Amino acid sequence: MAERCLEGLDWPLARRNDRMRPSAIREVMKLAEKPGVISLAGGFPAREALHVEAVRASAENVLTRYGTKCLQYGPTEGVGELVDWICSEMARRRMQIEPSQVLVTSGSQQGLDLVSRVLAEPGSAVWVEAPTYVGALRAFAFMEPEIMGVDLHSSRTDPQGLEARLGDLCQRSGRPRFMYMLPTYQNPTGRCLVADQRLEITRGLAKLGIPLVEDDPYADLWYEEPPPPPMASSYAEGSIYLGSFSKTIAPGLRLGYLIAPKSVMGKFVQAKQAMDLHTSSFNQYLVADMLGDGFVERHGRTLRELYKARRDALLGALASEFDNTDLLRWSRPNGGMFVWARLREGLDSIEVLTTAVEEGVAYVPGAVFYSQSPDVRTLRLSFVSATESEIRDGVSALARALRRFGSPKECRSERAPT
Amino acid sequence: MAERCLEGLDWPLARRNDRMRPSAIREVMKLAEKPGVISLAGGFPAREALHVEAVRASAENVLTRYGTKCLQYGPTEGVGELVDWICSEMARRRMQIEPSQVLVTSGSQQGLDLVSRVLAEPGSAVWVEAPTYVGALRAFAFMEPEIMGVDLHSSRTDPQGLEARLGDLCQRSGRPRFMYMLPTYQNPTGRCLVADQRLEITRGLAKLGIPLVEDDPYADLWYEEPPPPPMASSYAEGSIYLGSFSKTIAPGLRLGYLIAPKSVMGKFVQAKQAMDLHTSSFNQYLVADMLGDGFVERHGRTLRELYKARRDALLGALASEFDNTDLLRWSRPNGGMFVWARLREGLDSIEVLTTAVEEGVAYVPGAVFYSQSPDVRTLRLSFVSATESEIRDGVSALARALRRFGSPKECRSERAPT
Repeated sequence: MAERCLEGLDWPLARRNDRMRPSAIREVMKLAEKPGVISLAGGFPAREALHVEAVRASAENVLTRYGTKCLQYGPTEGVGELVDWICSEMARRRMQIEPSQVLVTSGSQQGLDLVSRVLAEPGSAVWVEAPTYVGALRAFAFMEPEIMGVDLHSSRTDPQGLEARLGDLCQRSGRPRFMYMLPTYQNPTGRCLVADQRLEITRGLAKLGIPLVEDDPYADLWYEEPPPPPMASSYAEGSIYLGSFSKTIAPGLRLGYLIAPKSVMGKFVQAKQAMDLHTSSFNQYLVADMLGDGFVERHGRTLRELYKARRDALLGALASEFDNTDLLRWSRPNGGMFVWARLREGLDSIEVLTTAVEEGVAYVPGAVFYSQSPDVRTLRLSFVSATESEIRDGVSALARALRRFGSPKECRSERAPT
Repeated sequence: MAERCLEGLDWPLARRNDRMRPSAIREVMKLAEKPGVISLAGGFPAREALHVEAVRASAENVLTRYGTKCLQYGPTEGVGELVDWICSEMARRRMQIEPSQVLVTSGSQQGLDLVSRVLAEPGSAVWVEAPTYVGALRAFAFMEPEIMGVDLHSSRTDPQGLEARLGDLCQRSGRPRFMYMLPTYQNPTGRCLVADQRLEITRGLAKLGIPLVEDDPYADLWYEEPPPPPMASSYAEGSIYLGSFSKTIAPGLRLGYLIAPKSVMGKFVQAKQAMDLHTSSFNQYLVADMLGDGFVERHGRTLRELYKARRDALLGALASEFDNTDLLRWSRPNGGMFVWARLREGLDSIEVLTTAVEEGVAYVPGAVFYSQSPDVRTLRLSFVSATESEIRDGVSALARALRRFGSPKECRSERAPT
């Protein structure tokens, strides 16, 4: 015993752990925690986006109305009041669903884990956009599939490109377990696919019999006009749709939902039951109560105004620092939380980060968003957590950092990353 | 598209889904939901055990004290205030741990899922008690190990039996990934291992280098004297310990915790991050606030009084109906939520259940608690959800049901199941 105590046990770890590495975002966020460093890294909702008084009022309401019921075990599928709201919300987004197609999850991250568990197999193929949400890569990786990044964007100019490209890929590398997409203000690129692109892709997936996993946490964060209907609305029989309350209500409540065709719903419910029985009843009643009174419409307007101003601050600051330079190119998103940028040739955003932090700003290096062949020049800038003046100071710090790297040996004209 | 819509998609399901079957407990609970049926099936805390006013006061407190912080994303490991409480609680249970050994989970069910993910491999062996908690069987099964039920109980009379038995088993069938035990008022048997048995088993596991997974949700529900220290306290370097707030605070908040040696903690944190990022910050602050003021001690006393009276009602009713009959034998637990019983020879508790429900009572057939070779005569009776008078009526209904099956062809004297 004494020797074992000193040595520790030789823990038998499952092979799937080999696929996990400490989250690069979390590591960066540790850097960003240095006092005085402005973080354009995290995707945390703004402090102003979190409505403490609404939570307080609803906590009071549900404890009075439901009493012990909201503290008790509940159904795996979710609390009826919240499920009903989700159904009507989906109708508003032009997807007709029934309550039996809804599974309430502990954030949409759990939806990604559920999808991976139920559909992915060690060695099987899973398609994702390149780049894509790093949390999805992590959730999928745990079940040991081969994750293949699909570049949908360079085909933009070819109207037949997307569908044909999916067909070619399927023929070359076999039918994947699913294709994961975040078509609306994507994390990390901020890109929103237009209606035609959505239809073309779902048509392609339907022909090939490939399930679509559509992740849609940012749909309410539009700054010019609402996004097109979800891709799942034109491919209902083959789509898993993931929604979230983390951006519109509060991430700290960990509430999201998964919508699936009835034929596979039972598998997701069984998996969820084995994973954590069900999502907090209290939080479900709480959020259902908050949503009851047109809260999302009112609060959505507030969020859009706040974040639009911050996006404009970021785009304005980037323009004033980097227009007419070769140091940086960037996207101009019309929704969501992120701007995607690309350093001049010869720079690696991971290497630049240390200098940027010295100058007083943090971002997320783009490499973490790729399953393979990362574009090391890319980086993600968030515009929701920092204030407008912090954003401007942060971009100035980024400019100082980049200037310390001097000019490229040779400057070539390049396209913006999107 | 139209044809696919009608046909539905041919969903590519991962092989691990084959291990899942709809939860038998959930099916039984549907039977038990018939109006007028008294349920001795579920393990739901009593209505009186859920302290609505304490939740209301703490919700108010934490929203005032922490504001938006308790609605924001938080650390994967857990909220500091709750982690600190868990450390001091473990010290009270005679386990010295550091905050870095704690991972807050979404109920202890998620702890079981984490253990399975990090340690179990398809085809690898996992040892469990026979019978054992059905939710653990489900969580483990998903990662496709071979689950082997170990009968620790018939060796009770042999002082060298337990350690030697583990050694034999290891030699015969190889070292398992871990041994899962619920030594304190086990679900379903109500059994509490005494200190000597605990030490003998941890000594055996340590010698063999087998990790112990100790599930301990019922430690505060003792009715005569507190249970011995956790098994993990005598095998700290090789144990994963799972705690829960579902029995003492409220299951609807979905809060539990996992304690592990520092050497493997990183793997659990990585897995948790991929699964749901972190457990609800709001619920963690809420429960930390509830716990701050000696709540568990005060509320623990209330729970013990309430449940002890109900246990006595159940044992009393069983004695008055079944003493001097051959119909039923049962355990006399001194803690927890369950009595384990065994029907006379020739009866199958699944077959008897329909008759029992006709007579007005539901229980859980014991077969669901075995990974293989179930003892079909066993059944689990819960004494926490029903009132004393409901318990008495329920047992009368059970007696009527059993009498409808008449006497056995031959009656043999038999031992109680524990």
